[in-house]
Amino acid sequence: MKEIEKEKALTFIEPGPVVLVTSYDGRKNNIMTISWTMAIDFAGHIVITTGPWNHSFETIMRSRECVVCIPNASMIETTVKIGMTSGTNTDKFKTFGLTALPAKYVQAPLIAECLACMECKVVDYVEKYGFIVLHVERVVENEALQDRRMFHAVGDGTFIMDGDKEEYRQLMAAKLPPGL
Amino acid sequence: MKEIEKEKALTFIEPGPVVLVTSYDGRKNNIMTISWTMAIDFAGHIVITTGPWNHSFETIMRSRECVVCIPNASMIETTVKIGMTSGTNTDKFKTFGLTALPAKYVQAPLIAECLACMECKVVDYVEKYGFIVLHVERVVENEALQDRRMFHAVGDGTFIMDGDKEEYRQLMAAKLPPGL
Repeated sequence: MKEIEKEKALTFIEPGPVVLVTSYDGRKNNIMTISWTMAIDFAGHIVITTGPWNHSFETIMRSRECVVCIPNASMIETTVKIGMTSGTNTDKFKTFGLTALPAKYVQAPLIAECLACMECKVVDYVEKYGFIVLHVERVVENEALQDRRMFHAVGDGTFIMDGDKEEYRQLMAAKLPPGL
Repeated sequence: MKEIEKEKALTFIEPGPVVLVTSYDGRKNNIMTISWTMAIDFAGHIVITTGPWNHSFETIMRSRECVVCIPNASMIETTVKIGMTSGTNTDKFKTFGLTALPAKYVQAPLIAECLACMECKVVDYVEKYGFIVLHVERVVENEALQDRRMFHAVGDGTFIMDGDKEEYRQLMAAKLPPGL
């Protein structure tokens, strides 16, 4: 896992992939699967939508921090299973054979198997809608992973993997913020 | 464009595609490109993040409605250009050769060339973050379009088209809401 520019956090959230969010409750690490996420500015803020129905929610609200990780396409089944398992009685890192690495600015762990992880602090909570507003403090990327494809939840039990890419940087030059 | 179940709105937003949002200011139709979007519940609410820097913003806030359309992969360049053009002095339907079709519950138009369009009413605005909370009133799908691929903005001027799909409905059965 190699630290990269914080501005790049946007490029992992704006495409709309399924993410794995880790937290640490003082006793053990947990992971939840989230696909309701959004980039909201160019200053490192992102939003995840969740609530008390997720075991991680209380931990994240209390610790005011979490790590948002981006699994690659080879992790779809594991990601689905993480989403179907409660962290109340399960050590998900152990159950799903994932590796917790220490983060720098938060106590929640990185997931070594993911494409990238973002260490986040909770800056706000819009209770009415379950929006947790996060600020990304550090971004690390797993440059060794061969399969760079993120994947997307359709919401009906199917998932779409990244396909071909197209580049329009020149056409968009006037609106691209520095660092992207 | 064929009307489909409203519950399916989620399946067009949760995967995180770039969307085209239409509005009608009483004189003319407009379109803006948005990639900061999020599904937020199973009751037909979605969020788009925008603000006064978009010409459509004022129209949407005043008319309290818009249509969220999903372009397919053949529309990437048009979608980028729509995002780089201000509606102040441009008829974007004419400029970009798009077809406006009448909606049923809102005055803003459908875009005939898109994969699907969702007629939306504005139900709330979280000013601090620019979140426009929309309720989807009607979903229409363009079943004739051959290329079913949505596309995703990376945020750095590149775009990722939908690739392969995988299905985990059985594994997720306990959490799939009715109608999905």
